[in-house]
Amino acid sequence: MDWTELESRSCSVARTASIVGDAWTVLVLRDLLNGVRRFDDLAGHLGIARNVLTRRLATLVEAGLVDKVPYREPGRRERHEYRLTQAGFELRTVIIAMADWGDRHLAGQAGPPMRIEHQDCGAAVHAELRCEEGHLIGERGRLRALPGPGAVRRAG
Amino acid sequence: MDWTELESRSCSVARTASIVGDAWTVLVLRDLLNGVRRFDDLAGHLGIARNVLTRRLATLVEAGLVDKVPYREPGRRERHEYRLTQAGFELRTVIIAMADWGDRHLAGQAGPPMRIEHQDCGAAVHAELRCEEGHLIGERGRLRALPGPGAVRRAG
Repeated sequence: MDWTELESRSCSVARTASIVGDAWTVLVLRDLLNGVRRFDDLAGHLGIARNVLTRRLATLVEAGLVDKVPYREPGRRERHEYRLTQAGFELRTVIIAMADWGDRHLAGQAGPPMRIEHQDCGAAVHAELRCEEGHLIGERGRLRALPGPGAVRRAG
Repeated sequence: MDWTELESRSCSVARTASIVGDAWTVLVLRDLLNGVRRFDDLAGHLGIARNVLTRRLATLVEAGLVDKVPYREPGRRERHEYRLTQAGFELRTVIIAMADWGDRHLAGQAGPPMRIEHQDCGAAVHAELRCEEGHLIGERGRLRALPGPGAVRRAG
Protein backbone atom coordinates (compact mmCIF):
# COMPACT_ATOMS: atom_id res chain seq x y z
CA MET A 1 0.00 0.00 0.00
CA ASP A 2 1.34 3.42 -0.96
CA TRP A 3 1.77 5.98 1.81
CA THR A 4 -0.78 8.35 0.29
CA GLU A 5 -3.44 5.64 0.36
CA LEU A 6 -3.44 5.94 4.16
CA GLU A 7 -5.71 8.43 5.86
CA SER A 8 -3.54 11.39 6.85
CA ARG A 9 -5.21 12.07 10.18
CA SER A 10 -5.27 8.46 11.38
CA CYS A 11 -1.54 8.50 11.86
CA SER A 12 0.28 8.71 15.17
CA VAL A 13 2.25 11.75 14.02
CA ALA A 14 -0.98 13.58 13.17
CA ARG A 15 -2.60 12.57 16.44
CA THR A 16 0.39 13.73 18.46
CA ALA A 17 0.61 16.95 16.45
CA SER A 18 -3.04 17.65 17.18
CA ILE A 19 -2.07 17.92 20.86
CA VAL A 20 1.47 19.29 20.83
CA GLY A 21 1.66 20.85 17.34
CA ASP A 22 1.69 24.36 18.73
CA ALA A 23 4.75 26.38 19.71
CA TRP A 24 3.35 27.62 23.04
CA THR A 25 2.35 24.12 24.05
CA VAL A 26 5.86 22.89 23.31
CA LEU A 27 7.30 25.62 25.54
CA VAL A 28 4.85 24.88 28.34
CA LEU A 29 5.85 21.21 28.22
CA ARG A 30 9.53 22.15 28.17
CA ASP A 31 9.14 24.32 31.28
CA LEU A 32 7.10 21.65 33.08
CA LEU A 33 9.84 19.13 32.29
CA ASN A 34 12.31 21.58 33.80
CA GLY A 35 10.35 21.73 37.04
CA VAL A 36 8.40 24.98 36.57
CA ARG A 37 4.98 24.17 37.97
CA ARG A 38 3.18 27.29 39.06
CA PHE A 39 1.03 29.40 36.79
CA ASP A 40 2.78 32.68 37.64
CA ASP A 41 6.23 31.14 37.18
CA LEU A 42 5.24 29.68 33.81
CA ALA A 43 3.65 32.95 32.67
CA GLY A 44 6.67 34.96 33.80
CA HIS A 45 9.28 32.74 32.24
CA LEU A 46 7.45 32.15 28.98
CA GLY A 47 6.30 35.72 28.49
CA ILE A 48 2.95 34.34 27.42
CA ALA A 49 -0.40 36.10 27.78
CA ARG A 50 -2.23 34.70 30.82
CA ASN A 51 -5.36 33.79 28.89
CA VAL A 52 -3.28 31.92 26.31
CA LEU A 53 -1.44 30.01 29.07
CA THR A 54 -4.77 29.19 30.73
CA ARG A 55 -6.08 27.73 27.47
CA ARG A 56 -2.94 25.73 26.74
CA LEU A 57 -2.87 24.26 30.26
CA ALA A 58 -6.57 23.40 30.09
CA THR A 59 -6.00 21.57 26.81
CA LEU A 60 -3.06 19.65 28.30
CA VAL A 61 -5.12 18.71 31.38
CA GLU A 62 -8.00 17.57 29.18
CA ALA A 63 -5.65 15.47 27.04
CA GLY A 64 -4.28 13.76 30.15
CA LEU A 65 -0.77 15.16 29.84
CA VAL A 66 -0.91 17.41 32.88
CA ASP A 67 -2.52 17.17 36.33
CA LYS A 68 -3.79 20.32 38.04
CA VAL A 69 -3.00 19.98 41.74
CA PRO A 70 -4.13 22.38 44.48
CA TYR A 71 -1.65 23.83 46.97
CA ARG A 72 -1.91 26.51 49.60
CA GLU A 73 0.83 28.63 51.08
CA PRO A 74 0.33 29.76 54.71
CA GLY A 75 -2.07 32.69 54.89
CA ARG A 76 -2.84 32.71 51.18
CA ARG A 77 -5.73 31.38 49.17
CA GLU A 78 -5.60 28.03 47.44
CA ARG A 79 -3.75 27.95 44.13
CA HIS A 80 -2.87 25.24 41.65
CA GLU A 81 0.27 23.84 40.24
CA TYR A 82 0.67 21.78 37.12
CA ARG A 83 2.47 18.45 37.00
CA LEU A 84 3.15 16.26 34.03
CA THR A 85 1.41 12.91 34.04
CA GLN A 86 3.40 9.87 32.94
CA ALA A 87 2.08 10.38 29.39
CA GLY A 88 3.13 14.03 29.44
CA PHE A 89 6.52 13.17 30.89
CA GLU A 90 7.14 10.73 28.05
CA LEU A 91 7.04 13.62 25.59
CA ARG A 92 10.56 14.44 26.75
CA THR A 93 11.89 12.35 23.87
CA VAL A 94 10.12 14.68 21.41
CA ILE A 95 11.29 17.80 23.27
CA ILE A 96 14.91 16.62 23.43
CA ALA A 97 14.86 15.67 19.75
CA MET A 98 13.76 19.27 19.08
CA ALA A 99 16.55 20.59 21.32
CA ASP A 100 19.14 18.48 19.47
CA TRP A 101 17.94 19.75 16.11
CA GLY A 102 18.00 23.37 17.25
CA ASP A 103 21.48 22.94 18.74
CA ARG A 104 22.66 21.60 15.44
CA HIS A 105 20.92 23.91 13.01
CA LEU A 106 19.95 27.10 14.80
CA ALA A 107 22.51 27.74 17.55
CA GLY A 108 25.04 29.58 15.39
CA GLN A 109 28.44 30.67 16.61
CA ALA A 110 27.38 31.04 20.24
CA GLY A 111 26.83 27.31 20.51
CA PRO A 112 24.04 25.38 22.22
CA PRO A 113 22.18 27.44 24.82
CA MET A 114 21.54 24.39 26.93
CA ARG A 115 23.06 21.05 27.84
CA ILE A 116 20.88 18.14 28.87
CA GLU A 117 22.73 15.71 31.11
CA HIS A 118 22.20 12.26 32.48
CA GLN A 119 22.19 12.82 36.23
CA ASP A 120 23.82 9.46 36.96
CA CYS A 121 26.95 10.05 34.88
CA GLY A 122 26.92 13.67 33.76
CA ALA A 123 27.14 12.78 30.06
CA ALA A 124 25.13 14.77 27.52
CA VAL A 125 21.83 13.20 26.45
CA HIS A 126 20.47 13.10 22.92
CA ALA A 127 17.52 11.59 21.07
CA GLU A 128 18.55 9.02 18.50
CA LEU A 129 16.87 6.58 16.16
CA ARG A 130 17.55 2.92 16.68
CA CYS A 131 15.89 -0.23 15.41
CA GLU A 132 14.79 -3.13 17.57
CA GLU A 133 17.75 -5.13 16.28
CA GLY A 134 19.92 -2.52 18.01
CA HIS A 135 21.25 -0.75 14.91
CA LEU A 136 21.83 2.95 15.37
CA ILE A 137 20.10 4.74 12.47
CA GLY A 138 22.58 7.39 11.41
CA GLU A 139 22.02 10.08 8.83
CA ARG A 140 22.31 7.58 6.02
CA GLY A 141 20.14 4.90 7.54
CA ARG A 142 17.20 4.15 5.29
CA LEU A 143 13.75 3.78 6.77
CA ARG A 144 10.35 2.92 5.37
CA ALA A 145 6.85 3.45 6.68
CA LEU A 146 4.41 0.56 6.38
CA PRO A 147 0.79 0.26 7.43
CA GLY A 148 0.42 -1.00 11.02
CA PRO A 149 -2.49 -2.94 12.57
CA GLY A 150 -4.45 0.30 13.12
CA ALA A 151 -3.95 1.64 9.58
CA VAL A 152 -6.95 3.42 8.09
CA ARG A 153 -7.28 3.48 4.33
CA ARG A 154 -8.12 6.80 2.76
CA ALA A 155 -11.65 7.13 1.49
CA GLY A 156 -12.40 7.85 -2.16
CA MET B 1 21.78 29.01 37.45
CA ASP B 2 18.10 28.18 37.78
CA TRP B 3 16.24 27.20 34.63
CA THR B 4 13.91 30.21 34.82
CA GLU B 5 16.87 32.58 34.82
CA LEU B 6 17.49 31.60 31.20
CA GLU B 7 15.78 33.49 28.42
CA SER B 8 12.89 31.33 27.22
CA ARG B 9 13.24 32.12 23.52
CA SER B 10 17.01 31.62 23.36
CA CYS B 11 16.62 27.90 23.77
CA SER B 12 16.96 25.30 21.07
CA VAL B 13 13.52 23.89 21.81
CA ALA B 14 11.98 27.35 21.35
CA ARG B 15 13.93 27.98 18.17
CA THR B 16 12.91 24.64 16.70
CA ALA B 17 9.30 25.16 17.79
CA SER B 18 9.26 28.54 16.04
CA ILE B 19 9.75 26.66 12.76
CA VAL B 20 7.98 23.34 13.28
CA GLY B 21 5.61 24.15 16.16
CA ASP B 22 2.58 23.97 13.97
CA ALA B 23 0.47 20.90 13.25
CA TRP B 24 0.23 21.44 9.48
CA THR B 25 3.98 21.93 9.21
CA VAL B 26 4.54 18.66 11.05
CA LEU B 27 2.25 16.86 8.60
CA VAL B 28 3.95 18.45 5.59
CA LEU B 29 7.34 17.29 6.91
CA ARG B 30 5.95 13.82 7.59
CA ASP B 31 4.66 13.51 4.02
CA LEU B 32 7.90 14.85 2.53
CA LEU B 33 9.80 12.25 4.60
CA ASN B 34 7.49 9.64 3.13
CA GLY B 35 8.36 10.68 -0.40
CA VAL B 36 5.37 12.86 -1.28
CA ARG B 37 6.92 15.75 -3.19
CA ARG B 38 4.41 17.42 -5.45
CA PHE B 39 2.10 20.19 -4.42
CA ASP B 40 -1.07 18.47 -5.64
CA ASP B 41 -0.13 15.20 -3.99
CA LEU B 42 0.59 16.94 -0.69
CA ALA B 43 -2.62 18.97 -0.87
CA GLY B 44 -4.68 15.90 -1.74
CA HIS B 45 -3.24 13.65 0.94
CA LEU B 46 -3.21 16.22 3.71
CA GLY B 47 -6.64 17.68 2.95
CA ILE B 48 -5.14 21.11 3.52
CA ALA B 49 -6.34 24.35 1.91
CA ARG B 50 -4.03 25.23 -0.99
CA ASN B 51 -3.19 28.70 0.31
CA VAL B 52 -2.28 27.24 3.71
CA LEU B 53 -0.03 24.64 2.07
CA THR B 54 1.60 27.35 -0.07
CA ARG B 55 2.40 29.37 3.04
CA ARG B 56 3.74 26.42 5.00
CA LEU B 57 5.98 25.34 2.12
CA ALA B 58 7.26 28.90 1.63
CA THR B 59 8.17 29.09 5.31
CA LEU B 60 9.99 25.75 5.11
CA VAL B 61 11.89 26.86 2.00
CA GLU B 62 12.84 30.14 3.66
CA ALA B 63 14.04 28.32 6.78
CA GLY B 64 16.25 26.07 4.65
CA LEU B 65 14.39 22.87 5.42
CA VAL B 66 12.97 22.34 1.94
CA ASP B 67 14.22 22.98 -1.61
CA LYS B 68 11.76 23.94 -4.33
CA VAL B 69 12.86 22.19 -7.51
CA PRO B 70 11.34 22.71 -10.99
CA TYR B 71 10.24 19.75 -13.09
CA ARG B 72 8.33 19.47 -16.31
CA GLU B 73 6.27 16.59 -17.60
CA PRO B 74 6.10 16.17 -21.40
CA GLY B 75 3.62 18.60 -22.92
CA ARG B 76 2.83 20.34 -19.64
CA ARG B 77 4.00 23.57 -18.11
CA GLU B 78 6.79 23.69 -15.57
CA ARG B 79 5.86 22.78 -12.03
CA HIS B 80 7.76 22.42 -8.78
CA GLU B 81 8.39 19.68 -6.36
CA TYR B 82 9.57 19.98 -2.80
CA ARG B 83 12.50 18.06 -1.38
CA LEU B 84 13.83 18.05 2.14
CA THR B 85 17.28 19.53 2.58
CA GLN B 86 19.70 17.70 4.89
CA ALA B 87 18.53 19.94 7.75
CA GLY B 88 14.89 19.16 7.00
CA PHE B 89 15.63 15.45 6.68
CA GLU B 90 17.23 15.44 10.13
CA LEU B 91 13.87 16.35 11.63
CA ARG B 92 12.92 12.71 11.18
CA THR B 93 14.06 12.06 14.74
CA VAL B 94 11.46 14.57 15.99
CA ILE B 95 8.75 13.13 13.73
CA ILE B 96 9.46 9.53 14.74
CA ALA B 97 9.50 10.51 18.43
CA MET B 98 6.03 11.95 17.84
CA ALA B 99 4.94 8.75 16.06
CA ASP B 100 6.20 6.63 18.97
CA TRP B 101 4.34 8.75 21.49
CA GLY B 102 1.12 8.63 19.48
CA ASP B 103 1.44 4.85 19.04
CA ARG B 104 1.78 4.48 22.79
CA HIS B 105 -0.80 6.95 24.03
CA LEU B 106 -3.32 7.61 21.27
CA ALA B 107 -3.60 4.48 19.14
CA GLY B 108 -6.22 2.72 21.28
CA GLN B 109 -7.42 -0.81 20.63
CA ALA B 110 -6.77 -0.72 16.91
CA GLY B 111 -3.03 -0.48 17.53
CA PRO B 112 -0.42 1.62 15.75
CA PRO B 113 -1.55 2.86 12.33
CA MET B 114 1.99 2.70 11.01
CA ARG B 115 5.21 0.80 11.40
CA ILE B 116 8.54 2.45 10.69
CA GLU B 117 11.17 -0.06 9.65
CA HIS B 118 14.89 -0.12 9.18
CA GLN B 119 15.25 -1.07 5.50
CA ASP B 120 18.45 -3.03 6.10
CA CYS B 121 17.00 -5.48 8.62
CA GLY B 122 13.24 -4.92 8.72
CA ALA B 123 13.19 -4.22 12.47
CA ALA B 124 10.93 -1.49 13.84
CA VAL B 125 12.60 1.87 14.47
CA HIS B 126 12.02 4.11 17.48
CA ALA B 127 13.41 7.33 18.90
CA GLU B 128 15.13 6.85 22.23
CA LEU B 129 17.14 8.93 24.65
CA ARG B 130 20.72 7.91 25.30
CA CYS B 131 23.65 9.66 26.91
CA GLU B 132 27.09 9.96 25.38
CA GLU B 133 28.34 7.32 27.82
CA GLY B 134 25.96 4.96 26.05
CA HIS B 135 23.35 4.59 28.78
CA LEU B 136 19.83 4.15 27.52
CA ILE B 137 17.64 6.68 29.34
CA GLY B 138 14.52 4.74 30.23
CA GLU B 139 11.38 6.12 31.79
CA ARG B 140 13.07 6.42 35.18
CA GLY B 141 16.31 7.95 33.92
CA ARG B 142 16.85 11.33 35.54
CA LEU B 143 18.01 14.24 33.43
CA ARG B 144 18.91 17.82 34.17
CA ALA B 145 19.19 20.89 31.95
CA LEU B 146 22.21 23.13 32.42
CA PRO B 147 23.22 26.31 30.63
CA GLY B 148 25.34 25.66 27.54
CA PRO B 149 27.92 27.92 25.90
CA GLY B 150 25.21 29.87 24.07
CA ALA B 151 23.00 30.39 27.14
CA VAL B 152 21.30 33.79 27.35
CA ARG B 153 20.40 35.09 30.78
CA ARG B 154 16.92 36.52 31.16
CA ALA B 155 16.76 40.28 31.43
CA GLY B 156 15.26 42.02 34.46
